[in-house]
Amino acid sequence: MSLDEDLEEAAGGPATGLPVHPGLRRARAWLSRAVEPGTIDLWRYVEDVGPVEAVRRLRSGRAPERVRSLVGARAEQDATLADLARAERCGARLVIPEDDEWPALPLHALTVAVSAEPGNRRDQSDRTKAPVPPMGLWVLGAQRLDELVDRSVAIVGSRASTAYGEHVAAELGHQLGERGWTVVSGGAFGIDAAAHRGALAAGAPTLAVLACGVDRPYPAAHGALFHRIAETGLLVSEWPPGCAPLRHRFLVRNRLIAALTRGTVVVEAAARSGAQATAQRARRLGRGVLVVPGPITSAMSVGCHELLRDEQAGATLVASADHIIEAVGGIGTDLADLPERPSGPRDGLSDLAARVLDACPVRSGVTPERLAAIAGCDVLEVLRVLPALELADLVEWTGTGWRLHPPPRRPGGPGAAA
Amino acid sequence: MSLDEDLEEAAGGPATGLPVHPGLRRARAWLSRAVEPGTIDLWRYVEDVGPVEAVRRLRSGRAPERVRSLVGARAEQDATLADLARAERCGARLVIPEDDEWPALPLHALTVAVSAEPGNRRDQSDRTKAPVPPMGLWVLGAQRLDELVDRSVAIVGSRASTAYGEHVAAELGHQLGERGWTVVSGGAFGIDAAAHRGALAAGAPTLAVLACGVDRPYPAAHGALFHRIAETGLLVSEWPPGCAPLRHRFLVRNRLIAALTRGTVVVEAAARSGAQATAQRARRLGRGVLVVPGPITSAMSVGCHELLRDEQAGATLVASADHIIEAVGGIGTDLADLPERPSGPRDGLSDLAARVLDACPVRSGVTPERLAAIAGCDVLEVLRVLPALELADLVEWTGTGWRLHPPPRRPGGPGAAA
Repeated sequence: MSLDEDLEEAAGGPATGLPVHPGLRRARAWLSRAVEPGTIDLWRYVEDVGPVEAVRRLRSGRAPERVRSLVGARAEQDATLADLARAERCGARLVIPEDDEWPALPLHALTVAVSAEPGNRRDQSDRTKAPVPPMGLWVLGAQRLDELVDRSVAIVGSRASTAYGEHVAAELGHQLGERGWTVVSGGAFGIDAAAHRGALAAGAPTLAVLACGVDRPYPAAHGALFHRIAETGLLVSEWPPGCAPLRHRFLVRNRLIAALTRGTVVVEAAARSGAQATAQRARRLGRGVLVVPGPITSAMSVGCHELLRDEQAGATLVASADHIIEAVGGIGTDLADLPERPSGPRDGLSDLAARVLDACPVRSGVTPERLAAIAGCDVLEVLRVLPALELADLVEWTGTGWRLHPPPRRPGGPGAAA
Repeated sequence: MSLDEDLEEAAGGPATGLPVHPGLRRARAWLSRAVEPGTIDLWRYVEDVGPVEAVRRLRSGRAPERVRSLVGARAEQDATLADLARAERCGARLVIPEDDEWPALPLHALTVAVSAEPGNRRDQSDRTKAPVPPMGLWVLGAQRLDELVDRSVAIVGSRASTAYGEHVAAELGHQLGERGWTVVSGGAFGIDAAAHRGALAAGAPTLAVLACGVDRPYPAAHGALFHRIAETGLLVSEWPPGCAPLRHRFLVRNRLIAALTRGTVVVEAAARSGAQATAQRARRLGRGVLVVPGPITSAMSVGCHELLRDEQAGATLVASADHIIEAVGGIGTDLADLPERPSGPRDGLSDLAARVLDACPVRSGVTPERLAAIAGCDVLEVLRVLPALELADLVEWTGTGWRLHPPPRRPGGPGAAA
């Protein structure tokens, strides 16, 4: 079936028996190749008219000039069947926002952040910095994407790392993996690879977010590493199979590493490296910025110490996996660590978390925006405490919104004999 | 002359030609042996009736029971002539608050802090923690005490230091010494010794605050080091010559290291070591708490990282001598670093410093307490900015209080030809 016929059928509604119409997936596959990720205006247009209609209008020249100009001559091309087939051949798939597997909650931080971008293109953030949600994610591996990132931490750092930095990254990756946390990184030389390897050594799944197609992960020297990652964890990319790791794509990719995880740990960074930008991006998404110190005699720790000295950066010094889990795990973990103490589930909640919990309705779920309005706080703050409330079994996601989690009925009920 | 005769003559007024009556010095020498330093009630009594009268009343049994009980049988003893002679033999002297050389400004922070202590002895701080000014300081060396501590930084840390810690302490001591800062430490094994040695290697004076007599500095293995320190810098102690380095004396001594300096740098500290107490004491005196990070794999950096993670501690990460000078040097240094920029002396003043400066009178000096009342801030804040204002030649100490420093007259005056 041609792309346009498939789109027309998809536009007609859920005619097939599948939860997601193949035409919808083809529309998102087309969009993921038509324009580089991180393009605010295209993302807004797709949000506005829907992905199927957006592609139909772009291909028929009915989209506004402002959006058509982003696609240009690629409007007439169609590599969707080839891309999807190529993905299938290497065992990969395209996960789209309409799938159950989509990590909607983590990526919602990008949706919130992009809404703050101005309408005038000249005033918008540079594409390498714009907080735009992905059109879809090409994924290679046996795990469900949403489950893998649910309790995840990014470990990032210099490619030109020292033995100290690699040891620390591997050790932290190992300990986080052992304790059920997914280590997310970029698969690069140095700190990234050490963190992935540490998690793998613990038998834990790990996730590499790539700046190229999942069928040709970069760097090539990490072929065996990527193979092992895909066996137990996931390789993830916004770019269709076959895409090359262009320089600017790494910068665009970095926002996903920040968004998918609960916090970013910087292990080693040279002076005036990208560490400041990494921290700024994570903070803008409401994520923790965690920094590992090192010897002050090491050039590869200068960037880390810069971050820790910069009060604007809001960075926290971490020197162990415990420190990291304390920072990103929040109240759920605290409750888990103190099982012997008699306590109600609300004990130990921060003031903010208690307010968000009080804002949750009993039956139909509401959006984080609505919760923020009721609790009288910022949406980013709501997004920061919801994962911990969910871990503590206090709230649940209904598929459309958040509501209170019904407490488990006690065996025998209140009337049972003691 | 007997002590009591000498005291009687001193009580009669400044009869001799010396700026300080020998009886007054003997009174303070007697007090420095009669009661261990850090005793709040004795210090208050001496403040109240004066040192000469305090000793006369204590020796004649006319002092209140509350104070007499602190001295006990030692009231009848008198080793003042022996102590002063012993000091003279080793080249030492007793510097007392009535001397020009007394470091009145740094130690004023202790006077302010002790005034916050309650009257009831059971509610007062433990003697090892009480912020009590010294009765006098036994000093060995060729430098003037007040001049040496004017621009000084404490470098402290573990005795069981690593090669990394010793390298860092020596390097920081060297760089601070080169840039005109006095390194103050405790002369102990490990970090202390490395810091002293670094300063000495730069040809800079350094100051060791001891917990025993200056004629028998501890540890004995540092005999050569102490000899070199006394040659160009100073050995300082609250205890008379011959006193032994008892364990609790080190804790009492530590408050002087904090008070005499503009900030305390912690280089290495084990987990739950004294680093937290050191930081708390420095902060209570309005001094900066500066902490050097290290490898997270090193047990000797765990205490440093604990401090940096503790928001209550108010610690600042420092990774170079520049960072330290930036933290303790303040505006005076900033002005010195930017000589090419056309600027008035008030440029670059913090809001607080500008308010304190505005509070200073033109003629007769006023106390820091008075300045705090006029400027609408805390006395500790005033004490924090006064050194920098003085360095910038904006204020001066009249001997009894602070006043504006008259701007130097330009050569030729305003009417001179250009």
